[in-house]
Amino acid sequence: MIIFGIDPGFAIIGCGIIEKTGNKYRLIDYGAITTKAGLDLSERLNIIYDEIVKKFEQYKPDCIAMEELFFNTNITTGINVAQARGVLLLAASQYGKPFYEYTPLQIKQAITGYGRADKKQMQKMVQTLLKLSEIPKPDDAADAVAVALCCGNSERFKS
Amino acid sequence: MIIFGIDPGFAIIGCGIIEKTGNKYRLIDYGAITTKAGLDLSERLNIIYDEIVKKFEQYKPDCIAMEELFFNTNITTGINVAQARGVLLLAASQYGKPFYEYTPLQIKQAITGYGRADKKQMQKMVQTLLKLSEIPKPDDAADAVAVALCCGNSERFKS
Repeated sequence: MIIFGIDPGFAIIGCGIIEKTGNKYRLIDYGAITTKAGLDLSERLNIIYDEIVKKFEQYKPDCIAMEELFFNTNITTGINVAQARGVLLLAASQYGKPFYEYTPLQIKQAITGYGRADKKQMQKMVQTLLKLSEIPKPDDAADAVAVALCCGNSERFKS
Repeated sequence: MIIFGIDPGFAIIGCGIIEKTGNKYRLIDYGAITTKAGLDLSERLNIIYDEIVKKFEQYKPDCIAMEELFFNTNITTGINVAQARGVLLLAASQYGKPFYEYTPLQIKQAITGYGRADKKQMQKMVQTLLKLSEIPKPDDAADAVAVALCCGNSERFKS
């Protein structure tokens, strides 16, 4: 069972792909889609869409998981992240396999058992759970791997 | 020159299509794309995408204009509208013709000459400018026609 985790963003979108066999996890790949600040909004959304569609075709996940969005203090960034997330949701929907969303709290609890875990604790647990020699970089990719692990651990996934 | 105006939304997306010949405007059509509250977010985004792509194919606009987004007090609605707007932007970008964005202030000024015009004044001016027997309904469609008229009047459009 291949799970594709996404940490949504506008300038940088984290991707983490894992395989779940029984109760065991294996990291398949991770990375990030990036869009340059100088480009038009619509061009950047186009790049995000094309790149995520390519990744779905490449890794053929059995399900897709994405972090839910909460607004931070920067409203302009918030709008752009939400617009980009709409494009990622569309691509996931068109791909046609099961799609799940998790709040940051759910992800932290699933990975560390503690809803207030900080970024370092989360990354350390991702490394431990997948027996990695190093923590995935950038942070967005590590976050995306955490979303995929959360999906693998979740009750919704088993049903 | 056919201009396709869009009033972005999540449950309801206004569409207004006008033709500009010299300094004259003619209303071609107007309406709304709607998505039902009971559907999944990703399903609703899928419907929005498919419907707007169909409308671009049907009316073959020479350019597309969309209102910019400002956050209202309802943050959850704001996120969903922004996600839907991302999908509309993607469709516009894929369509490949010029695309313009206008703030509510720019639209009001272009239509009524007054940035604080209320909804009724706006609708009345849309009716007058296009010599319509009645105001387009729903309000979202009238707003979309206003966006298209704003685009037709704007300097950016002439260049």
